[in-house]
Amino acid sequence: MIDRCRKLAGFSERPDATSRTFLSPPMHDCHQEIAEWLEPLAVEVKIDAAGNLRAFYPGREPGSPRLLLGSHLDTVPDAGAFDGALGVALAVGLVESLEGQRLPFGIEIVGFSEEEGVRFGTPFIGSRALVGRVDEELLRREDARGMSVRAAIEDFGLKPGDLAAARLEGEIVGYVEFHIEQGPVLDELGLPLGAVEAVAGQSKMEFTFFGRANHAGTTPMHLRRDSLAGAAEWIGRVERDANTVPGLVATVGTVEPKPGVTNVIARETRLTLDVRHRADEVRMLAVDRLIGAAEEIAVRRGLTLSQRTLLSQPSVPMDEILVGQIEEAMAQAGCKPYRMVSGAGHDAMILGEKVPAAMVFLRTPGGISHSPEETVEMDDVAKALETGSRLLELLAESPARARRGKRA
Amino acid sequence: MIDRCRKLAGFSERPDATSRTFLSPPMHDCHQEIAEWLEPLAVEVKIDAAGNLRAFYPGREPGSPRLLLGSHLDTVPDAGAFDGALGVALAVGLVESLEGQRLPFGIEIVGFSEEEGVRFGTPFIGSRALVGRVDEELLRREDARGMSVRAAIEDFGLKPGDLAAARLEGEIVGYVEFHIEQGPVLDELGLPLGAVEAVAGQSKMEFTFFGRANHAGTTPMHLRRDSLAGAAEWIGRVERDANTVPGLVATVGTVEPKPGVTNVIARETRLTLDVRHRADEVRMLAVDRLIGAAEEIAVRRGLTLSQRTLLSQPSVPMDEILVGQIEEAMAQAGCKPYRMVSGAGHDAMILGEKVPAAMVFLRTPGGISHSPEETVEMDDVAKALETGSRLLELLAESPARARRGKRA
Repeated sequence: MIDRCRKLAGFSERPDATSRTFLSPPMHDCHQEIAEWLEPLAVEVKIDAAGNLRAFYPGREPGSPRLLLGSHLDTVPDAGAFDGALGVALAVGLVESLEGQRLPFGIEIVGFSEEEGVRFGTPFIGSRALVGRVDEELLRREDARGMSVRAAIEDFGLKPGDLAAARLEGEIVGYVEFHIEQGPVLDELGLPLGAVEAVAGQSKMEFTFFGRANHAGTTPMHLRRDSLAGAAEWIGRVERDANTVPGLVATVGTVEPKPGVTNVIARETRLTLDVRHRADEVRMLAVDRLIGAAEEIAVRRGLTLSQRTLLSQPSVPMDEILVGQIEEAMAQAGCKPYRMVSGAGHDAMILGEKVPAAMVFLRTPGGISHSPEETVEMDDVAKALETGSRLLELLAESPARARRGKRA
Repeated sequence: MIDRCRKLAGFSERPDATSRTFLSPPMHDCHQEIAEWLEPLAVEVKIDAAGNLRAFYPGREPGSPRLLLGSHLDTVPDAGAFDGALGVALAVGLVESLEGQRLPFGIEIVGFSEEEGVRFGTPFIGSRALVGRVDEELLRREDARGMSVRAAIEDFGLKPGDLAAARLEGEIVGYVEFHIEQGPVLDELGLPLGAVEAVAGQSKMEFTFFGRANHAGTTPMHLRRDSLAGAAEWIGRVERDANTVPGLVATVGTVEPKPGVTNVIARETRLTLDVRHRADEVRMLAVDRLIGAAEEIAVRRGLTLSQRTLLSQPSVPMDEILVGQIEEAMAQAGCKPYRMVSGAGHDAMILGEKVPAAMVFLRTPGGISHSPEETVEMDDVAKALETGSRLLELLAESPARARRGKRA
């Protein structure tokens, strides 16, 4: 599976790095490659109108419910080989491991066309198609070269008119996604796998402190209105606040002072804030405290402040029963069951709107991701495959559970 | 004089703003305009090989010593009308106010060609020519279009070979420069004028904190090495340190986190530091403390630090006797004598290497300078002219003092 991920990483828009955005030409090669893996399994492979690879391995009987397994096939620029791809490779590996055995449910392998949001600035286009959320507004969005989503779909040889047919139909057991953690938690704890019980909610905000530009040499300290000094004080408050609340993360990743030169006190300083927590209330309270802190700092320093919310996305819980089954499967596979929260968004968050969804995280050495240095341990991949096999058995053994899924 | 400054502001490289760099075409018009002001005074006007306007009003006898009066004629981009120009306009006004009366010394009006350092990244080219410090290294420097200082001199119609003749010669009484303060101190104190007793020394440094880039959503607070959070803590230390030392100013004007995006913890953050004080020892101690603080922060946070000194320029005291005479003249003109330190560099700092030099600052409303909104009060200009006239009288009455100047 690691080799297969490395092979997919070679299908790129750039010769020197992995970069494979939504509906880009190398995505054709990527689909072709996966179809070749699936050929011995006599699995029907289609590309839906949103560019998702959909491969169906039938269940024991016609009309059996379906379990969805998969992840995304697009990448960030200069990507690693495992983000997304490993989830698809593991789904294929799990079907291979059945050696033709039929289960009380069919398995649909999904290779989502778009999760990273690189090309159109909007993530999850692939999974949105499965839950019926690709609307006219999204189809009109344009990429950096002015091509719309609609035109990109046609350019890839697909028909936007067929999007409705990409929606999930029939009885769905659930959606299970294997994905690298892309964070350092499992690595720090020395654990190979984690069962994701929720995707954290996220607030993205922009703050600007306005002061007065003045000469750095001629303006005494007590006569300054230094927007950057105010912003720096606030960055410290953000960090201290997040340190005091378990599970809260708050990040200032950008700061832009203007004019931004050595010998001029910054007239205005813009910053961004990213706050995440599994409990929306905890996140909203933190945002309120940080707005309050910024206002207090501004008033005390004779600055003015503007702030706006760019995104406020609620937390998405994973399906409790499915998470419990994953923990059981992990234990059977010899892994210590460990529940965790995903700080990043994933397709499972979108699928969870319609069907029981859950994720299994694989340890990411050093927490390094979105980088060519991204790796996985071969043992961890083996444990993930074993966990997946145990999970299929558990789902097959408890038909009641397997059938409780909503009709999509 | 205010009208004359506004007229000069119209000679610009840009139609919509004042921007007149060293040896730029509008400098010809600027020189022509000043020559027209001087025509009724039968003053000899020359442009030396460094592009400085030099106008000589003879003293009572041939071979009398010379008093230099002036300031610079170049501007920053998008400049105000008074920075530099007002000092030249006041020098012309003082000679006009003599109404042909001859003093025991001649007066040379100097309109320096280059003080701001915009075109070649090196300031004070004009005044350096008067003290013999335009060397081969400087002549080879290139502007953004690849033209050297030497070529720019030729392009303006001057001869680099004549630079030696631009040097000060003979007995010099001193150099007196009127200049807007470009800071808020006089405005805050409600004073029209200040006698500059020293130009502060200056340290310019660059600091970079190196941490680890990580996903803002998936990396718990305690596993971060956030270079920007470290940099922000240090900005607070810089501000607090400067607040505790009288007369010290310390500024972080730029901060550049990388990659500088909302959802990634900054891998590295570069900042600049500008520290100034009239006492070099105080400044150097402050720099040492701030380096120590940055190191302590880096170690505690698991970051690494690099720092380098871009500039360490000693403080330049003005001529004590001349400053005393300026205070006396200010008092006679009805102004409260007030001594101050210049936080910014000026041509007087360069001239002070060879001749007794001093400056008179004019109140700058709101401290606003290097901006089209830069203004001066008409009353303050009148008081500056009156102070200048009293100073000429004082210098004329005390020939011993007037003759103590070094031979340049």
